[in-house]
Amino acid sequence: MPYGHNGSMKVKPGHRDAVVAILLDGVERLRDAGCHLYVVSVSDTDPDTVWVNEVWESAAHHQASLDLPEVKESIGKAMPMLTGEFTGQQLTVVGGLGVPRPT
Amino acid sequence: MPYGHNGSMKVKPGHRDAVVAILLDGVERLRDAGCHLYVVSVSDTDPDTVWVNEVWESAAHHQASLDLPEVKESIGKAMPMLTGEFTGQQLTVVGGLGVPRPT
Repeated sequence: MPYGHNGSMKVKPGHRDAVVAILLDGVERLRDAGCHLYVVSVSDTDPDTVWVNEVWESAAHHQASLDLPEVKESIGKAMPMLTGEFTGQQLTVVGGLGVPRPT
Repeated sequence: MPYGHNGSMKVKPGHRDAVVAILLDGVERLRDAGCHLYVVSVSDTDPDTVWVNEVWESAAHHQASLDLPEVKESIGKAMPMLTGEFTGQQLTVVGGLGVPRPT
């Protein structure tokens, strides 16, 4: 079954759009690492948070992606703009619209 | 910008898989209503919750979908198996992998 991760990160005031730009830069490359979906969102009611919903081929694919040079570089760029407050929920994706069927 | 909704619902013990089946039944039809993504997930660590992450063309498309006969029917079928505890976060989707580009 695909692995899902619903996460959010708090950004230092005024840095949200810069963090979003870092997250979106080169996001298509994650496909080769086994990423099916990587959805970046914001909210009008909470201007200092960025949400990322991910679907990966497996938890192992997600974990391995954290060692990719381009991912490490993105994390390094974004980190100074984050407060260090994160939320995260690990999930097993069972299906739906726009997600790969379980194999 | 597309509209996102991250939601979860608590199910009565033992009813999770039945609720998942209802959510997945005919999910492809939501595409015609303006739904881009409808990701249904579960968690090993919380057997009585179902997560649904949605991306719609707009908040209006999402709202209108709740009046579709097939959606009303699904809600009616699932409701007796839910505890009534929901979480929901409304979002503006700014981009990513697997989501439509803003127009």
